[in-house]
Amino acid sequence: LRSERQLTEWLRKKCGIPAGSEVVLGIGDDCAIYRPRGSRDDLLFTTDLFLEDVHFLRRTHTAADAGRVAISRGLSDIAAMGGEPRFVLVSLSVPTWADGKWVRSFFRALTARTGTCGAVLAGGDLSHSEKLACDVVVCGAVPKGKALLRSGAQPGDAIYVSGRLGGSALGLETEAGKAWKRHVTPEPRVAVGREIRTRLRATACIDISDGLSLDLERLCLASNLAAEITEPPIFPGATLGHALHGGEEYELLFTVPETVRVPSRVAGVSLTRIGQTTSGKAGQILFQGERMKPLGYDHFRLK
Amino acid sequence: LRSERQLTEWLRKKCGIPAGSEVVLGIGDDCAIYRPRGSRDDLLFTTDLFLEDVHFLRRTHTAADAGRVAISRGLSDIAAMGGEPRFVLVSLSVPTWADGKWVRSFFRALTARTGTCGAVLAGGDLSHSEKLACDVVVCGAVPKGKALLRSGAQPGDAIYVSGRLGGSALGLETEAGKAWKRHVTPEPRVAVGREIRTRLRATACIDISDGLSLDLERLCLASNLAAEITEPPIFPGATLGHALHGGEEYELLFTVPETVRVPSRVAGVSLTRIGQTTSGKAGQILFQGERMKPLGYDHFRLK
Repeated sequence: LRSERQLTEWLRKKCGIPAGSEVVLGIGDDCAIYRPRGSRDDLLFTTDLFLEDVHFLRRTHTAADAGRVAISRGLSDIAAMGGEPRFVLVSLSVPTWADGKWVRSFFRALTARTGTCGAVLAGGDLSHSEKLACDVVVCGAVPKGKALLRSGAQPGDAIYVSGRLGGSALGLETEAGKAWKRHVTPEPRVAVGREIRTRLRATACIDISDGLSLDLERLCLASNLAAEITEPPIFPGATLGHALHGGEEYELLFTVPETVRVPSRVAGVSLTRIGQTTSGKAGQILFQGERMKPLGYDHFRLK
Repeated sequence: LRSERQLTEWLRKKCGIPAGSEVVLGIGDDCAIYRPRGSRDDLLFTTDLFLEDVHFLRRTHTAADAGRVAISRGLSDIAAMGGEPRFVLVSLSVPTWADGKWVRSFFRALTARTGTCGAVLAGGDLSHSEKLACDVVVCGAVPKGKALLRSGAQPGDAIYVSGRLGGSALGLETEAGKAWKRHVTPEPRVAVGREIRTRLRATACIDISDGLSLDLERLCLASNLAAEITEPPIFPGATLGHALHGGEEYELLFTVPETVRVPSRVAGVSLTRIGQTTSGKAGQILFQGERMKPLGYDHFRLK
């Protein structure tokens, strides 16, 4: 295994969606899309693993931190498609070191987040193991045919990012202060996603989970475009490297037609133009005129 | 944590489904049920963890065995509600010991099973870790309001079981022969579930994943009933203990009104009457006249 992309591509080819399937979008975007017979909505599905020593450390995360981070990944994927979260399923393998109090605190923090978004915990699975293993599924809804995809950008669209980048990566290094707080209490941009879909006529969107450089490459590859960007807004104290390549930001990266007037804030979050798409080689990113490699996070890169 | 039931009950009380929610059934059955606006179908959702050293051993399971078992748990839950599998999501954390060949073989076996049922792999998540961790979500569909629940049994209903029990538990002990084959190539009873819902007017159903004794108790508790049973059909070579308490059978346990004529085989699988429900104390099971304790599998019992 050399990269996630290689395995994902193999799976995508192997698991072609047959014509007429109610699955209208399969592997390769932030969510799969399912269109039930007769339904007015398309349903968005995302599933995210949350594993001890991979996605969090027992030493640094409280139970509430863990619950919040576990649910944020999925909510952010729903936000990236402009959807409204409806329900979640949580599979949790309780580690030997956790007692009932820890588990209840984990679920309290997780369901507080879903409650804020109007979603309910509808089911799950329980198991036990040495280390904590968790998988969170989020289902969201969007009016039929209206989901924001990675693949809809057009040449010459303006590229925007929500919020400021690099805080989560900085927090992971320092384990202190506002940056650490940002790392363990991410704020999925559900309201922002809905607004950019309905009011800003966004053409494409992705959430920044593995770093701006890698996620912008993904958006460009899906849209068969290149991009030129400048410096994104940077979280106080973070470096340019943190902002360009740091993961777990859960900000939205999106494109709008050049003619759309984009407000500087939406749903309390700043929106900043960082560049535009071009008709160059698919996936090629120029940062301040220079080629930028996607250095974001890939689980298999070191293998 | 004293039992899965204790934690599940806490979650169920904490996560009440608000009136008017599209989630029409939450925690506590084989699947959650979601009813999209305007849809002709109810959607069934189940999520199941599949963890190295908990649900399988690297030493005993080939990649294809692992893929088949991982998907079977969810397909069996859909079968227990009389549903038709539509799509699956697979979250896989690839262990350090697995190479690309192993991973592809795992997915080939898994998707062969979903293909047989008419479902597609629509998405998932990839990660890495020391041990394999996997979570499989299956979505199934059933005409609106027609899902088979655990809670629908009436006093005096006949209790039936599909197939023969104890083979999987025997296989786990012997690691050889037909019993081992049964353990690593379970056959989710999707066609049987559909038939008992549509043709036999079943009142309640559950799949036997944690042992007949425990799963019958769950059905009885959900239906607020007691039950009296006799010996179930036993897999060749297995003991009565294997058949009563062994898990991972993936056979269906269901109730039908006393007046329904039940054929001895459905979709190529035998159906055997093993007793009836009574209006006694909820969850109390009499086996050949004696109280039977639910000795099936509970992840937290030993804590």
